[in-house]
Amino acid sequence: MSVPATTVVPPLTDELDIVIPTIRNLDFLEQWRSFFQPYHLIIVQDGDPTKKIHVPEGFDYELYNRNDINRILGPKASCISFKDSACRCFGFLVSKKKYIFTIDDDCFVAKDPSGQEINALAQHIHNLLSPSTPFFFNTLYDPYREGADFVRGYPFSLREGVTTAISHGLWLNIPDYDAPTQLVKPRERNTRYVDAVLTIPKGTLFPMCGMNLGFHRELIGPAMYFGLMGDGQPIGRYDDMWAGWCAKVICDHLGLGVKTGLPYIWHSKASNPFVNLKKEYKGIYWQEEIIPFFQSVVLPKECTTPQKCYLELSKLVKEKLSPVDPYFEKLAGEMVTWIEAWNELNPSTDATPTATTTADAVPKKK
Amino acid sequence: MSVPATTVVPPLTDELDIVIPTIRNLDFLEQWRSFFQPYHLIIVQDGDPTKKIHVPEGFDYELYNRNDINRILGPKASCISFKDSACRCFGFLVSKKKYIFTIDDDCFVAKDPSGQEINALAQHIHNLLSPSTPFFFNTLYDPYREGADFVRGYPFSLREGVTTAISHGLWLNIPDYDAPTQLVKPRERNTRYVDAVLTIPKGTLFPMCGMNLGFHRELIGPAMYFGLMGDGQPIGRYDDMWAGWCAKVICDHLGLGVKTGLPYIWHSKASNPFVNLKKEYKGIYWQEEIIPFFQSVVLPKECTTPQKCYLELSKLVKEKLSPVDPYFEKLAGEMVTWIEAWNELNPSTDATPTATTTADAVPKKK
Repeated sequence: MSVPATTVVPPLTDELDIVIPTIRNLDFLEQWRSFFQPYHLIIVQDGDPTKKIHVPEGFDYELYNRNDINRILGPKASCISFKDSACRCFGFLVSKKKYIFTIDDDCFVAKDPSGQEINALAQHIHNLLSPSTPFFFNTLYDPYREGADFVRGYPFSLREGVTTAISHGLWLNIPDYDAPTQLVKPRERNTRYVDAVLTIPKGTLFPMCGMNLGFHRELIGPAMYFGLMGDGQPIGRYDDMWAGWCAKVICDHLGLGVKTGLPYIWHSKASNPFVNLKKEYKGIYWQEEIIPFFQSVVLPKECTTPQKCYLELSKLVKEKLSPVDPYFEKLAGEMVTWIEAWNELNPSTDATPTATTTADAVPKKK
Repeated sequence: MSVPATTVVPPLTDELDIVIPTIRNLDFLEQWRSFFQPYHLIIVQDGDPTKKIHVPEGFDYELYNRNDINRILGPKASCISFKDSACRCFGFLVSKKKYIFTIDDDCFVAKDPSGQEINALAQHIHNLLSPSTPFFFNTLYDPYREGADFVRGYPFSLREGVTTAISHGLWLNIPDYDAPTQLVKPRERNTRYVDAVLTIPKGTLFPMCGMNLGFHRELIGPAMYFGLMGDGQPIGRYDDMWAGWCAKVICDHLGLGVKTGLPYIWHSKASNPFVNLKKEYKGIYWQEEIIPFFQSVVLPKECTTPQKCYLELSKLVKEKLSPVDPYFEKLAGEMVTWIEAWNELNPSTDATPTATTTADAVPKKK
């Protein structure tokens, strides 16, 4: 079963921020009130900074608009996208917490097959606090779940797992399709509740969606840069993909785990496929070269922090992807700016992190 | 939803054999009658060849006991295990069909969450006839299922997939645990129905269980050797693991896909953990060296058939695993014998197979 919707003491209230990028009033929070209210919210207001965003009463939040971003980052604000949900990564930068959960404002509470409301945040926390198993596949999925374990033939030396850095949740109702698929299948809805969490194996890339995503900010935050998208850029809707490719390669290098599956949220509204096509079309052909690039990335073993890994990656992006389009030279430069901004706002985090080979919080078995 | 339990015209009745290793009367077939009766069965009788095995009326079958194996293979019969379900691979050898489904005689018909009986064979056929996606992970699982597709960010060049060679099914009730886990959790039952089929990514090994398994015999059959186990051997209960490691490495090399997940069968009875511990204990420590070996295997590109791949693998096993135990030198020798037997019984199959980069039967979308 999924994590119960009601938890007596909400976990990690002092160690996790919820980051929400938005251009509108946050009425969607009403539905999440019982799950989110114990946590601090970081709202990143996109678009017109003079617009007043309404946040429902009773939530503990800080809100940043473009003027705030420019004021805080100065010239380094160039690395934060404008008029694109990629701006959410500013929230990762200013957070001081160990964990982040980020969610889109068109995502609502889903129900599991028994009709119970799913506390997506609680499931992400559970995923992040239990280890991952990237080196060998377990056919009964997450071996740390109640009622499951490692199957016959799973090496005992790998059963401690590694620390989980990313928890990627899914979506009921409107699936996260690209514009061509949206156009071809306008009525397709995701109704299949797959009751599983699994580790994405080492060496395998995946399309990371930013709609419903948890991560360990200390261990992988510096790699969670959502790139240059939106206003003035030739591409959109690849912000989370970019972060996912970079973060997965770095997790693999640093021996950290990435999980996908539960929790589901209810994705309420498909975005306009014609608008999306315009935003995506360069990404659709660029990704045919970008993905083989990321599949071939090898980071030197001196890269022992996510910052060092990310700077190394920026060099490789400049070298290998600039021939695809000059955009990537610009992006590589802003990747460096991002890390400079990260280190400025998060001093003394560029030491070797304390990642261990086992999860750092909960016991292995619930 | 899973594949409907009743199919108007059973698929592939002329192209698939069901292989069952057994030492007892096959009364379990009664429960499978409506699903299996249209198919041909190959029964491999293990143990005492003078014992008469009862097969329920109405099934079309051929049965081989140890005397038959010795008669048919002559001196090459040394490669077929005795007193171990590893003998099932003799059935793969004598089959003349394109596909194999193999099942243990303690596996019964499971029910999906709606209470409908699961036609495991139909689901395996569906898995085998739709492509796999080993090069990039799809977060909504099998993109070829009804109601699913490739998500945003999935490269379009990879959406045709590759031919599926193996369909690995799972088990409700008694999970496939090793002896130590059985001993520690004697009462654990698998009650979680995960409604998913997914491709195991290229480069990732998995613990393949032979209890509920379908495969493309022409494309991967020669790699489905279940090794030397049981009577006179220092190891048991690693027959399917061995086949799985070999077959996955060869599938990865040949560009073939491996799926796991649905269908579930109902596994009725846990085997004795004390007996299992005795059979497994060498495997439990050997696998700590065997798995890194398989993770490091690189086959030369001249290996264009499963036979060539398997012979190359036998050389590597002899070279790299003999230092672990002399058993592996013997096993490497019988791997060669197995291929000789395969080629003798299946002449002219050692040419470059006709695997294409797309599935060879059904349309991409149902």
